[in-house]
Amino acid sequence: MEVYLDNSATTKCFEEVAKFMTKILCEDYGNPSSMHRKGFVAERYIKDAKDIFARILKVNAKELYFTSGGTEADNLALIGCALANKRSGNHIITTKIEHPAVLEPLAYLEKQGFEVTYLPVDENGVLRLKDLEAAMTPNTILVSIMHTNNEIGALQPIMEAGKIIKKVNPKCLFHVDAVQGFGKAKIYPKKMLVDLLSVSSHKIHGPKGVGLLYVDEKVKILPIQFGGGQQKNIRSGTENVAGIAGMAKAADMLYQNLDEEVIQLYELKKYFIEGLKQIPDTQINGRTDEFSAPHIISFSVAGVRSEVLLHSLEDKGIYVSAGSACASNHPQTSKTLMAIGLDKKLWDSTIRFSMSVFTTKEEIDYTLKALYDMIPMLRKYTRH
Amino acid sequence: MEVYLDNSATTKCFEEVAKFMTKILCEDYGNPSSMHRKGFVAERYIKDAKDIFARILKVNAKELYFTSGGTEADNLALIGCALANKRSGNHIITTKIEHPAVLEPLAYLEKQGFEVTYLPVDENGVLRLKDLEAAMTPNTILVSIMHTNNEIGALQPIMEAGKIIKKVNPKCLFHVDAVQGFGKAKIYPKKMLVDLLSVSSHKIHGPKGVGLLYVDEKVKILPIQFGGGQQKNIRSGTENVAGIAGMAKAADMLYQNLDEEVIQLYELKKYFIEGLKQIPDTQINGRTDEFSAPHIISFSVAGVRSEVLLHSLEDKGIYVSAGSACASNHPQTSKTLMAIGLDKKLWDSTIRFSMSVFTTKEEIDYTLKALYDMIPMLRKYTRH
Repeated sequence: MEVYLDNSATTKCFEEVAKFMTKILCEDYGNPSSMHRKGFVAERYIKDAKDIFARILKVNAKELYFTSGGTEADNLALIGCALANKRSGNHIITTKIEHPAVLEPLAYLEKQGFEVTYLPVDENGVLRLKDLEAAMTPNTILVSIMHTNNEIGALQPIMEAGKIIKKVNPKCLFHVDAVQGFGKAKIYPKKMLVDLLSVSSHKIHGPKGVGLLYVDEKVKILPIQFGGGQQKNIRSGTENVAGIAGMAKAADMLYQNLDEEVIQLYELKKYFIEGLKQIPDTQINGRTDEFSAPHIISFSVAGVRSEVLLHSLEDKGIYVSAGSACASNHPQTSKTLMAIGLDKKLWDSTIRFSMSVFTTKEEIDYTLKALYDMIPMLRKYTRH
Repeated sequence: MEVYLDNSATTKCFEEVAKFMTKILCEDYGNPSSMHRKGFVAERYIKDAKDIFARILKVNAKELYFTSGGTEADNLALIGCALANKRSGNHIITTKIEHPAVLEPLAYLEKQGFEVTYLPVDENGVLRLKDLEAAMTPNTILVSIMHTNNEIGALQPIMEAGKIIKKVNPKCLFHVDAVQGFGKAKIYPKKMLVDLLSVSSHKIHGPKGVGLLYVDEKVKILPIQFGGGQQKNIRSGTENVAGIAGMAKAADMLYQNLDEEVIQLYELKKYFIEGLKQIPDTQINGRTDEFSAPHIISFSVAGVRSEVLLHSLEDKGIYVSAGSACASNHPQTSKTLMAIGLDKKLWDSTIRFSMSVFTTKEEIDYTLKALYDMIPMLRKYTRH
């Protein structure tokens, strides 16, 4: 049996999406900038993709820009806005548990003279709103808070944060990295007072190499990549038509039955957690109720190294992640696990299960049985 | 009949490539950064892609970086090298006929304090080597010259330019935008003394949204996109595995029979040009022999506006480009046509035919017949 529980790292592309992409790649392959019919057909796919996202996010199609992924969307949002608005101030606020795609552009901006405040989180990985309010200054031009933490599934109070930011400084921009949240939650930037929102295709059963950035039409932003002037000169480069259309189709498919999918994921998660709780000397990190992501479970197993557990599960055909998968080629202690105050002994004994719409109860049963069998054995080895 | 003669704008994806991508998207969809088997399988596709390009370009696989396209490859090469080497000097040399993906990053660098010299070209669009030598100073850190001009197909003397650059200043870096040349010529950066080389997938029957940058291992370069540290921290962001593998497969397919393909394209081009010469008051711009690109023909038709000709051809199912297609959503006078000293009256009467391995003699015959029929008629209308 193959059980893929690493969906927060990346997902299986929907077959309908791949088929749609093949048609575009081999038949409707025009360049959207070309002035003939084949160009218009290609442009139409992009327009349709924008319309789908505009409907899902309840924004205007003209406020959407396609990028090469979540990382570029975050880079464009943060660097593009910081540089465009530096006359208004040089202070940026974020949290300690953001993805490297947010933390690293901010580290770059610090070198350019910007000041960045990194807010702590509580034991569940949730930002305290009073910390945000206290950190805001008249000099704050940008706040970036992730929607859903990728390691423990903590959900941030985006709407409340938006209200605080705009109350203290209506001109301060609010960016949300929704790479883990989009496809699992209804996200309405305008209602949440969010000015910029990043989405990634390959986390929602679309192809890798595509992302989306929502930019409220009032936002001043500068490009970070220069060239032919595509996408209103905010993001030059021939558009990845098949990828863009594929990402939109995946989003469309997910959002048609989102409520049911999310209920099903929460049920699976609850069932999975009940099973995990049967294993002595283990713990689930963060909240486990509907105030956590429906698809992510962070699981610490005292006395077993996460790498050993990961490879033992792999031997059974079960794929999980140790720490954050997006940077797991560079093993280092997870900033999120440190920030929630996890017992130091468990930092290196934590794995992440992340589910998708393809995950079944049978797969969870199979995984639980494997864990029941292997954990006592692995602990015996470790204690030797 | 449908005749696609806009292959310099973009190409039809090989069906074998799309099929290969579908397998990766739907079956081997792991994240290359994941530490389990599905991650390794994904990483393997990237390694295989690098091996293919390393063999074709005769470079080391570790000198290759994947980007979101030719535009990002050019941006990374120019901005990444300029910023990494600014202590050695602030002078950059390029030509007046580069693609916007080179000219616009250089315009950005000018705002950051770099000085850029734009070299003229001769009536065939070819750089004069003495101009390059005269422009070189001890302060010159970077020279960027395109391999093949996208508008008139002029080939630049890359090898000779490399020798001059390295003779005057061995530390000066040499970047070549090979977006139009790769797939049509044998290009060996090390032999040509080229330090950085940009390639685009969708110009060689691969998918859109993928590109390649060769960076000689001795080159100092800084990233322009920040995040999870993928690709040795030079280009963060989850790799577009299917796109990368697809681009490599397309390159592999083209280079297996490159000599024959190029001979066939030159024969078609010669045949096409002989037919075009039958039309009075028209001209081919630039060279037409083997010292021009095998796939590009720039054609000026006195007394007919290029847009009118483009749409008349479109009515017959023939797709061509007016000026440079990559930015044709923003009509402006072509810098290349100005630079070669084309009669001002013809600036707006020039179209580009660009062929591919799919182009047939029958398609050229059909196109020539259409032109023979429509040009006299269009001229009559214009003269009214």
